[in-house]
Amino acid sequence: MITFEGSEGSGKSTHAARLEARLREAGVPVLLVREPGSTELGQYLREWLKREKTTVPLAELFLFEAARAQLVQDVIRPALKSGKVVVADRFTDSTLAYQGFGRGLDIGLIRRLNDAATAGLVPDVTILLDVPVVAGLERAANRSDDAGSRKFEDLPVEFHEKVAAGFRALAAKERKRWLVVDSTRDQDAV
Amino acid sequence: MITFEGSEGSGKSTHAARLEARLREAGVPVLLVREPGSTELGQYLREWLKREKTTVPLAELFLFEAARAQLVQDVIRPALKSGKVVVADRFTDSTLAYQGFGRGLDIGLIRRLNDAATAGLVPDVTILLDVPVVAGLERAANRSDDAGSRKFEDLPVEFHEKVAAGFRALAAKERKRWLVVDSTRDQDAV
Repeated sequence: MITFEGSEGSGKSTHAARLEARLREAGVPVLLVREPGSTELGQYLREWLKREKTTVPLAELFLFEAARAQLVQDVIRPALKSGKVVVADRFTDSTLAYQGFGRGLDIGLIRRLNDAATAGLVPDVTILLDVPVVAGLERAANRSDDAGSRKFEDLPVEFHEKVAAGFRALAAKERKRWLVVDSTRDQDAV
Repeated sequence: MITFEGSEGSGKSTHAARLEARLREAGVPVLLVREPGSTELGQYLREWLKREKTTVPLAELFLFEAARAQLVQDVIRPALKSGKVVVADRFTDSTLAYQGFGRGLDIGLIRRLNDAATAGLVPDVTILLDVPVVAGLERAANRSDDAGSRKFEDLPVEFHEKVAAGFRALAAKERKRWLVVDSTRDQDAV
């Protein structure tokens, strides 16, 4: 399993889709998923999260974990079992970065919930697409409404700075799993 | 905080409303809540849970905890702080009984999630309305669609027997907090 992580507008969706296409061309069985989404429950929760700004951070955390539990059990585990490479546009580390470093919820609690929701599934490789926060937010603002998590984009720059710092801290702590890529370059170079 | 617990058709909603009315008449400031519900997020999740049978038990657990986190932070804590008695139609023990004893999820995990979602809030008194499972399901089947959690009602009798046994085990373990009431008698007697 390969996951893409990063702040808003860092190019995750683009590069996850490109990696999927590349693997497919090379004859590797592959499945692309995104979080939250990729299940009916995930879509239902995604709609709520994009629309509602009144959700308290702790409830938001549980919603992401609900979507993840469904995605792992219904989609990811069966795909891995059938020999597919799963490419994910966001996964457990986004919850640590956004709800932990960003919202300020307890990191230990989030780790325990991540572990429960995935039944211990950890990505083999995690690619952090690193862009300066402001440049990423500008990119995100220029794309179509559907692509991103508009609700998070609307939060102040300071929030996104904390998230970005969180991603870098996570990557620094587990160098074997993480690959940090400068995503300010053009798409082909990345 | 006073919570009502019990299997389907045990009379929780009726008696929670009657207790609320009685307290109000006596001049006690009181707030009645139900789970999931009583917040916009709770209603949104309630609709999903009533309609969808494909949700995996672990995702279902996280959805109940999300609704609870929002309810506790937005509604219950402020009400308690302002001196109100909060009467709840279902709370943390329902999750232990349904998702733990009924669905078979790990009880220790559920206790940890309950504790996180409520930030340690434990009811002062919990009233278990005890009815034989089959009689309760018959009662539940005769009421309007809106009142209950139809999705759970559709599960086999064996599931409900496990839930009922779970409630009794929880009550036996913490006798100081629980009050077990025979709910087969007529409403006034109960």
